[in-house]
Amino acid sequence: MRREVAIVMGSDSDLLVMKEAAEILEQLGISYELTIVSAHRTPKRTSDYVSGVDKRGVKVIIAGAGGAAHLPGVIAAMTTLPVVGVPIKGKSLEGLDSLLSMVQMPPGVPVATVAINGAKNAGILAASIIGTYNKKVSKAVLAYKKTLEKEVLGKASKLEKIGWKKYIDEKTTK
Amino acid sequence: MRREVAIVMGSDSDLLVMKEAAEILEQLGISYELTIVSAHRTPKRTSDYVSGVDKRGVKVIIAGAGGAAHLPGVIAAMTTLPVVGVPIKGKSLEGLDSLLSMVQMPPGVPVATVAINGAKNAGILAASIIGTYNKKVSKAVLAYKKTLEKEVLGKASKLEKIGWKKYIDEKTTK
Amino acid sequence: MRREVAIVMGSDSDLLVMKEAAEILEQLGISYELTIVSAHRTPKRTSDYVSGVDKRGVKVIIAGAGGAAHLPGVIAAMTTLPVVGVPIKGKSLEGLDSLLSMVQMPPGVPVATVAINGAKNAGILAASIIGTYNKKVSKAVLAYKKTLEKEVLGKASKLEKIGWKKYIDEKTTK
Amino acid sequence: MRREVAIVMGSDSDLLVMKEAAEILEQLGISYELTIVSAHRTPKRTSDYVSGVDKRGVKVIIAGAGGAAHLPGVIAAMTTLPVVGVPIKGKSLEGLDSLLSMVQMPPGVPVATVAINGAKNAGILAASIIGTYNKKVSKAVLAYKKTLEKEVLGKASKLEKIGWKKYIDEKTTK
Amino acid sequence: MRREVAIVMGSDSDLLVMKEAAEILEQLGISYELTIVSAHRTPKRTSDYVSGVDKRGVKVIIAGAGGAAHLPGVIAAMTTLPVVGVPIKGKSLEGLDSLLSMVQMPPGVPVATVAINGAKNAGILAASIIGTYNKKVSKAVLAYKKTLEKEVLGKASKLEKIGWKKYIDEKTTK
Amino acid sequence: MRREVAIVMGSDSDLLVMKEAAEILEQLGISYELTIVSAHRTPKRTSDYVSGVDKRGVKVIIAGAGGAAHLPGVIAAMTTLPVVGVPIKGKSLEGLDSLLSMVQMPPGVPVATVAINGAKNAGILAASIIGTYNKKVSKAVLAYKKTLEKEVLGKASKLEKIGWKKYIDEKTTK
Amino acid sequence: MRREVAIVMGSDSDLLVMKEAAEILEQLGISYELTIVSAHRTPKRTSDYVSGVDKRGVKVIIAGAGGAAHLPGVIAAMTTLPVVGVPIKGKSLEGLDSLLSMVQMPPGVPVATVAINGAKNAGILAASIIGTYNKKVSKAVLAYKKTLEKEVLGKASKLEKIGWKKYIDEKTTK
Amino acid sequence: MRREVAIVMGSDSDLLVMKEAAEILEQLGISYELTIVSAHRTPKRTSDYVSGVDKRGVKVIIAGAGGAAHLPGVIAAMTTLPVVGVPIKGKSLEGLDSLLSMVQMPPGVPVATVAINGAKNAGILAASIIGTYNKKVSKAVLAYKKTLEKEVLGKASKLEKIGWKKYIDEKTTK
Repeated sequence: MRREVAIVMGSDSDLLVMKEAAEILEQLGISYELTIVSAHRTPKRTSDYVSGVDKRGVKVIIAGAGGAAHLPGVIAAMTTLPVVGVPIKGKSLEGLDSLLSMVQMPPGVPVATVAINGAKNAGILAASIIGTYNKKVSKAVLAYKKTLEKEVLGKASKLEKIGWKKYIDEKTTK
Repeated sequence: MRREVAIVMGSDSDLLVMKEAAEILEQLGISYELTIVSAHRTPKRTSDYVSGVDKRGVKVIIAGAGGAAHLPGVIAAMTTLPVVGVPIKGKSLEGLDSLLSMVQMPPGVPVATVAINGAKNAGILAASIIGTYNKKVSKAVLAYKKTLEKEVLGKASKLEKIGWKKYIDEKTTK
Repeated sequence: MRREVAIVMGSDSDLLVMKEAAEILEQLGISYELTIVSAHRTPKRTSDYVSGVDKRGVKVIIAGAGGAAHLPGVIAAMTTLPVVGVPIKGKSLEGLDSLLSMVQMPPGVPVATVAINGAKNAGILAASIIGTYNKKVSKAVLAYKKTLEKEVLGKASKLEKIGWKKYIDEKTTK
Repeated sequence: MRREVAIVMGSDSDLLVMKEAAEILEQLGISYELTIVSAHRTPKRTSDYVSGVDKRGVKVIIAGAGGAAHLPGVIAAMTTLPVVGVPIKGKSLEGLDSLLSMVQMPPGVPVATVAINGAKNAGILAASIIGTYNKKVSKAVLAYKKTLEKEVLGKASKLEKIGWKKYIDEKTTK
Repeated sequence: MRREVAIVMGSDSDLLVMKEAAEILEQLGISYELTIVSAHRTPKRTSDYVSGVDKRGVKVIIAGAGGAAHLPGVIAAMTTLPVVGVPIKGKSLEGLDSLLSMVQMPPGVPVATVAINGAKNAGILAASIIGTYNKKVSKAVLAYKKTLEKEVLGKASKLEKIGWKKYIDEKTTK
Repeated sequence: MRREVAIVMGSDSDLLVMKEAAEILEQLGISYELTIVSAHRTPKRTSDYVSGVDKRGVKVIIAGAGGAAHLPGVIAAMTTLPVVGVPIKGKSLEGLDSLLSMVQMPPGVPVATVAINGAKNAGILAASIIGTYNKKVSKAVLAYKKTLEKEVLGKASKLEKIGWKKYIDEKTTK
Repeated sequence: MRREVAIVMGSDSDLLVMKEAAEILEQLGISYELTIVSAHRTPKRTSDYVSGVDKRGVKVIIAGAGGAAHLPGVIAAMTTLPVVGVPIKGKSLEGLDSLLSMVQMPPGVPVATVAINGAKNAGILAASIIGTYNKKVSKAVLAYKKTLEKEVLGKASKLEKIGWKKYIDEKTTK
Repeated sequence: MRREVAIVMGSDSDLLVMKEAAEILEQLGISYELTIVSAHRTPKRTSDYVSGVDKRGVKVIIAGAGGAAHLPGVIAAMTTLPVVGVPIKGKSLEGLDSLLSMVQMPPGVPVATVAINGAKNAGILAASIIGTYNKKVSKAVLAYKKTLEKEVLGKASKLEKIGWKKYIDEKTTK
């Protein structure tokens, strides 16, 4: 079976964040695989895994990690596929450690870093990348962006109509 | 004329950083265009420019900006193409302001952020993205990575042979 | 109907913070409108909205946003009205990202930034601005500041009278 | 003589930064006064000065300070005029200290903070505020913004015409 | 009645932190007064209050404040008494804003800054200062430090005797 | 009785973090002692304690501390044994204060710093150090690392088999 | 010979910063001693030195240090005298490391921390402390503060008279 | 030939920092090897290199890297030897990025991190580790620490004798 995106993370404790990448890919009709790969605890599995993704048709790798978040960089060192990094907020430093250890890669080995805990955006970025050669996907991304726009417009028009006091009431009583 | 990558920046003072994206794209045989587009000083030009890139075949937009570095995010709001952001270090805060205002994008509108002043990596990331559908380019990226590897191996073997004292002497007398 | 202040925010999740701007404006007798405008999800609405505010008599725009908080800067690029920015604290980085992406605007396009989650102060600042030409409003601001002063004086005198132990007891049993 | 803007700073060492506020106000045809007022070294002068600005017609106060940058906040506590704060970068901490001690004002006493060393933007913001009641000034701001736009467009078109390599050559040989 | 220490804070919301200064002063047998003084909301009261402390025999002023924490610095500008500053942690930035706006005072006007929320240490520091001329107080501080030492020694010896597992059990079941 | 590792901490409130060092040492079959030693509250005990560890065969000292976390550095000044430092997260600043006051030691007196609250890693590092001369211990570390690897592989294979939705369900219902 | 203040520093590289404490003490007519004491490289000398200062009449200890700046805290653990800490900016982190490792002391052992490189203020603070029992010194501090005020007033009046352009010319041609 | 310590770095631009580790090891009479190994540009060489160090008798690995400084962590994942990490300051963020991506390692894979650019301390730490089983080395470390102590004592006594003014004169005229 072919999968266009590989979603990996360093630990199953990252899953509650990283599942948002999977969800948006499903919503956009993009096939993916998802697994655990630890740069530090399973270095051999990491290189085995990365060297195998091509054969399954993977075009983009999304990697999430926290703390000294090396996984996306380590993967980027082993492939020419674009690697999207999701810094995951840990129990200290508010995610700054994950962000810096992911984004500050040296010349030659970029990681396309998104926001702290921004797994949804990692999925959308992967879709944008696939959309560079797959019209259906770029249209799905466009449609998704239009949905977002409509959602905001709907909320804005409701807020203008009923006023912010009622709007808050409705939201908080829900 | 078709160009696969668009390199834009907020000001011509960013050019000395951003030219590294152009240089690596040339080295990898990827066509590009490069210009100035300011999210804050030329908002109309920004939307005109972005809406026109598709027609010229652009597949990836690289945008560099400093301080409250909105340009990549503003462009990402107007296109479904992948947008690569280069945070540029300004005269205060060591680039932290540019980095955070670029990477912390809200759900729906990702910016693929690279390191502070990391324009070279932005170019390589763009190449990786084009490489997802263009074998020639992905091979060029692989070849480039091999060159980097060789370069490091060469330096390592020289360093091991002549020792670090001589190595430093030679480097500093050059 | 004329409104002197426009309060906008990037998402309805910002409403619980931004309503404090509305509340203080009501208290100071200043008309306002309040709605949702997303720089990233509704770029067209943003420029339409901003180009229309003049006609309704808007003199100051208050814009709140979190993360890569571009909204106030994007609006400031489209108007000559003073734009007051409210950085909103998100789920990571303690509001530092919102603050820096709002305050570090480039020469030519200022955003009058207030404290993180400081929507009340944004309302007072808007009132001060309107007070530069509207005596009634500047008097209302002065009266409000006197109220604050009295409040502090009242608490201070109570605290001095009953002592801090009783004062805490009363406060915590309430 | 009437002056619409008062520019103050804590020390004459801030003058090289703060003069940019004066220059842009001159360019926009707005009268101003400029002096030194130290919240910490001349507390009495500070309150005397602030209580006197109204009589000279001052509508906006711009205050620059570095380190524990209290001046704008201390002034804001003494007036209902809008106070624009310019955090000035000192010899350590990259301006973060000045920024935080200026922007994080408590409810009731806002300071309209601009970028670190952003004195030019402080002047433009003051002009925007005066423009809320003075059409001539708001037109001057609009014209200035158009000039900025033209400048960027000019540079962009030159850059596109001669290419970035020549452009850099010309810039660096100047 | 004479009081050797004045404890002031910008708001009654700071009381739960600042009371620890009062408690330790009571424990050390040092008289004090405690009240609310806001640099921003009651500037006149602030200068009246500070100019009056001498007459009541105050030798040290302890001032606590959060956010743009100007109170200790503003007081230090009005007196030659030593001023001890307590940065209070607010709802964002983890106390960094309070700390920097307190400690980074300009030459000529020092604030003796203690840890974030470190009101107890502010009291001990005040006692140390009074102890420079009052033997009874310096002995009380010494005795207090010995108590701390004994407390640690007691816990250490218990921990060594019963082992950490039992020690945790006892602590958590209490 | 001989103990190879000494685990010390500045306060019994650090015990819930530091016990993880003890647990992993037990698991790896390494003898240890654990106690409270405060650089600031028991300076004499600190030097007495450190001068005595050699006699009991201690080869590595693990020291945990929070805030201005001086304990490991103070101990390192008194011994030639390797000192491993564990920065403990306090109530403000997210552990950044502990980390910097531990890791930024001056030339001559290193502290081997691990992650914020990283007591487990401190234990493993101590084991690695002992493993340099004790084969049994280095084998135990290797075995432990293999266990970690197996654990990750097990989770990965389960996740791949049942899919992330079921995996999350099982985890959250537990 | 009696000395009222002891100025110590961790290394002679701190002397160019710390001499400002000595200079201001001389100017204020306060006797002092100045030497090098390293918490990490000369722990024995540190405790010997601190236990001896009382006999020479020292009332305040000023301690400067950079990086993991333990010296003031280590001294504070050994004395009941007030200890003033001067965080010294090193080659990285802009002085944040020195500041945090000095100011974030645990309950019981305060360090009166002043600004990064703020040795002059440390001297003034020491004078303020001595001024609590020595009228002559408190008058000298008052006189010094008046000098500062006059200096600012003089500069302000010159600036107002000749205008900022001439003022800058004169300053920069000097 | 046997070498007890391996010093590696990600790039030859790190050599001017890392040579200090080599120098101190030479001074302490410890054999070492020094080379370039890039986690990102030569991943294969990295694992080959690490798997070979045991055979040459290496007991401690010192690894220096800047930016997203993965090298020490990646090596730590491949060995049970203790790995000492040296965060190297780059062109932005003052070394904070290197520090955090090195020290914040996940449970199971510690890196013994020293100060930013602290290569000398990395060497001393390696010597301390070797000293746990090699008396000669632990004595060399002790002797070295005594030298440091003497050096400080010498400077202190000179400074006390000639006074700080002359001391600075001599230092600056040299």
